[in-house]
Amino acid sequence: MAFDAIETPFAKTDKIIGGSATYVAYAASNFVQPVQQISIVGNDFPQEELINLQQRGVITDGVKIVPDKKSFFWSGRYHLDMNTRDTLITDLNVLEDFDPEVPENYQGSEFLMLGNLVPAIQQKVIQQFKKRPQLIVLDTMNFWIETAWEDLKKVFTMVDVLLVNDSEARQISGEHSLVKAAKKILKMGPKFLIVKKGEHGALLFNDNSVFFAPALPLEDVFDPTGAGDSFAGGFIGHLAKTKNISFENMKTAIIVGSVIASFCVEKFGTERLKEITEQDINARMQDFVQLVNFDIALV
Amino acid sequence: MAFDAIETPFAKTDKIIGGSATYVAYAASNFVQPVQQISIVGNDFPQEELINLQQRGVITDGVKIVPDKKSFFWSGRYHLDMNTRDTLITDLNVLEDFDPEVPENYQGSEFLMLGNLVPAIQQKVIQQFKKRPQLIVLDTMNFWIETAWEDLKKVFTMVDVLLVNDSEARQISGEHSLVKAAKKILKMGPKFLIVKKGEHGALLFNDNSVFFAPALPLEDVFDPTGAGDSFAGGFIGHLAKTKNISFENMKTAIIVGSVIASFCVEKFGTERLKEITEQDINARMQDFVQLVNFDIALV
Repeated sequence: MAFDAIETPFAKTDKIIGGSATYVAYAASNFVQPVQQISIVGNDFPQEELINLQQRGVITDGVKIVPDKKSFFWSGRYHLDMNTRDTLITDLNVLEDFDPEVPENYQGSEFLMLGNLVPAIQQKVIQQFKKRPQLIVLDTMNFWIETAWEDLKKVFTMVDVLLVNDSEARQISGEHSLVKAAKKILKMGPKFLIVKKGEHGALLFNDNSVFFAPALPLEDVFDPTGAGDSFAGGFIGHLAKTKNISFENMKTAIIVGSVIASFCVEKFGTERLKEITEQDINARMQDFVQLVNFDIALV
Repeated sequence: MAFDAIETPFAKTDKIIGGSATYVAYAASNFVQPVQQISIVGNDFPQEELINLQQRGVITDGVKIVPDKKSFFWSGRYHLDMNTRDTLITDLNVLEDFDPEVPENYQGSEFLMLGNLVPAIQQKVIQQFKKRPQLIVLDTMNFWIETAWEDLKKVFTMVDVLLVNDSEARQISGEHSLVKAAKKILKMGPKFLIVKKGEHGALLFNDNSVFFAPALPLEDVFDPTGAGDSFAGGFIGHLAKTKNISFENMKTAIIVGSVIASFCVEKFGTERLKEITEQDINARMQDFVQLVNFDIALV
């Protein structure tokens, strides 16, 4: 949970609420409550935001508030393609000495989503669960692949689902073909691999099967920040709601994740995620069905 | 119909049979016969190849054989990503003075596929049909957008379906968003727009609807040459077979096109297209169903 300041070719924000865990919580709380949050913020993080989350069924007992420090702050500028960006500022602040503690009342959780962060911290969270959650989903990024590879490889062996983008999948495996990349990565620990391709959709791989989910073709992408985290939140939210971790149900979960991500990018930060209703989500699920649905005709 | 010499990072051919019309004919003849071919070749084009096509129901009355010239020849080298390529040689040869003639026995054709070529030549073919075909599909490329824009715009007003890749759609419309690009292009004449995104699949737009077809995730792409033409041949082949040009049926036709393209790239040139059977095509249609099929779950 953090602050972001975002510049796109079309608009600009001052400091607004951001952070993987924030997006994941807003996204997942549409499908399952309570969501038990683990994070760290500084004295500058608005109380209203925590209350807002609590009102959506997000338990914040695991969110440490550091009185004499500021929250993590990231500032970035998106390029014209809205796919690539430059980081302008990264102020670690409270994240510098984040030592996550899983509260006693979180024990017994069945679904664990590890947002993008230092692999050693992700590992610490897993290890504190006395009973391993039924499903552990891991997000990571190129920065950790490059700077904490040994730790990250260890975390791979502890999780069920790995979420990365296409260039990260290629980086991890050294393979350009995503099919070959998936085969290698699935030997490193995760049983399922999700490869996010931004505007080109997402692929889900396991040993024998592959599923492809498109991204909704949008007229405008207003702000891509948090799209991947919203995707992750929708994905695990659907699985936690249905308590079914089969490949078949993960396919639906990926569509749910794509639906939530398609809302996220319509406004700055978490703004759109706070507005959407059950009706909005269901209507857009139908849009996705229409988008890929076809009659099969044999030759 | 032409000769290609192809280099990929993994292999290399001498002169082999190529050309849009060749790929389209091989692809379409899986679905509908006769296919009535219009093209031009030189004295070097092998008789066996024409016989091979004839045996697949391709009528070659419209293929002009120029006795004192050579066939069009293109040579290119693919980059490591297999998406981009450098042209090494372009010998126009017979294409320099190609003046297509629609044979009398082709009159009454209901489905016309215009392979990528000089827009003025494409126009001449359309104009020779005494009764306008029910459906005209146009392929083109960046080269004609840049060098024959006025002619190309005129052809847009004469066709029903335009096939381009994503960067060409952006180039024609001046819009980065493919949704916005489609809106502009559909005002230029075509009622349907297909945007090919290579390994990222294809989009079909009309006034109110959009459909997305993935590309099959392949372990290896051996040679991408002809993939777009095979796609076009499968697309129009399915429509001609079913005689149904609704948006719904075009969705299936795009999957058929993707299936044929997925075979094409498995070997050099038209090699794989010559081998595939009805069973192969049907099995791969099922792979596409599996690839995108999911159960919808409402929130």
